Amino acid sequence: MEKTAEKVKFTLVLFSGDLDKALAAFILATTAASMGMEVTMFFTFWGLNVIKRNQGGIKSKGVMLRMLNTLNRGGSERLKLSRFNMLGLGTWMMKRLMKQAKYPSIDEFIKMAKDLGVKMVPCSTSCGLLGLPDDAFRSGIMDQAGAAFFLAQAKESKVTLFI
Amino acid sequence: MEKTAEKVKFTLVLFSGDLDKALAAFILATTAASMGMEVTMFFTFWGLNVIKRNQGGIKSKGVMLRMLNTLNRGGSERLKLSRFNMLGLGTWMMKRLMKQAKYPSIDEFIKMAKDLGVKMVPCSTSCGLLGLPDDAFRSGIMDQAGAAFFLAQAKESKVTLFI
Amino acid sequence: MEKTAEKVKFTLVLFSGDLDKALAAFILATTAASMGMEVTMFFTFWGLNVIKRNQGGIKSKGVMLRMLNTLNRGGSERLKLSRFNMLGLGTWMMKRLMKQAKYPSIDEFIKMAKDLGVKMVPCSTSCGLLGLPDDAFRSGIMDQAGAAFFLAQAKESKVTLFI
Repeated sequence: MEKTAEKVKFTLVLFSGDLDKALAAFILATTAASMGMEVTMFFTFWGLNVIKRNQGGIKSKGVMLRMLNTLNRGGSERLKLSRFNMLGLGTWMMKRLMKQAKYPSIDEFIKMAKDLGVKMVPCSTSCGLLGLPDDAFRSGIMDQAGAAFFLAQAKESKVTLFI
Repeated sequence: MEKTAEKVKFTLVLFSGDLDKALAAFILATTAASMGMEVTMFFTFWGLNVIKRNQGGIKSKGVMLRMLNTLNRGGSERLKLSRFNMLGLGTWMMKRLMKQAKYPSIDEFIKMAKDLGVKMVPCSTSCGLLGLPDDAFRSGIMDQAGAAFFLAQAKESKVTLFI
Repeated sequence: MEKTAEKVKFTLVLFSGDLDKALAAFILATTAASMGMEVTMFFTFWGLNVIKRNQGGIKSKGVMLRMLNTLNRGGSERLKLSRFNMLGLGTWMMKRLMKQAKYPSIDEFIKMAKDLGVKMVPCSTSCGLLGLPDDAFRSGIMDQAGAAFFLAQAKESKVTLFI
């Protein structure tokens, strides 16, 4: 008996915490997964905001980290457009347009990705730098892993993107 | 008789609508095509601005989409630098520098790309969200296609970039 | 006797001149090199700022280029965060956090990359446009090369990223 064909791998880094780039990342990740690819999303720097819990504060040590994590609170509901945010008006409009066009919200995309078996991994290096404990993230997110993990995945992937 | 070697494929997503990133994308795409690669450019989100017609308005349905498409008018002549735009002064200076150094403008790059057989494809998902009909784009642009089309191209490509 | 296995190649373009993106690029490049990959970093546009000398001015011809290279002075010590720069306060805080978490600075990362054999190449097309002579860059940087060089590297690489 032959082994079934190995799945084509698709790996992406989400560095950005912008609503529009997060949307692009999740559209690609969920489409790839539903086409049968094996998908890993690696969240780093501002991209970590996308998978932070929406409720509750983040407990960081030290004044600077507490300041940073208040300013940079994150959570899928707090993401902004990279353009035309216009004090929140543009972002609000874009979310309305998404609803009107029956697009999933980022929250729904995260659930879809999970259901489709997409691995969502926070970058441990960034988490260390930004003082983010594991419980800063929503459920369904995998354990933190570092750049070596990402590169090992990327090496085996047909497509790797940095978003 | 053997089949001639298949061309190496190069696929890129242009997500950004910044003049400088569009320039980078077209330099890579036209260089790759003239090196004999098979090149696909997939335009999404703000990147769609690059291939919009410069003349005439865009007819969208609904107040919000009309507002968005007025603010976010697009067209190769309206692109701005991601840095040092300085109310247009920086962008104007960069265009002067490009002319002075005998670099093609974005307009000329689009024509070159077309002549070299680069496939330029607008992302149907973004077009749906942003209310962009096919006639929002200049001539020589291919029909809209979705994320699945992009991923199918990327899977066959040696190099795929997200810009 | 068989030839030893060829090294896996990893190529990245650094287009951005932001501190956070430069950091991501060097973490990936140095990690990949220490995992035994053959790494090429190609610096273009604002990314050229990362490898500019910190001391001394840049001699460019013409008023516009002199203005541009004063505004866009660059050097590893002048990089700013893409978010929360807050007139320099956010960037200062991030550098403090990096020191506190015992992370290398960009300067130290550049030295590490060099020691690990990472090839750091300035894009000749951007250098031409922005009026940057070879001596604008710090020591240890390779000669300028163009898009064709980058694409030839990328074609041979398992992973290519645009940052």
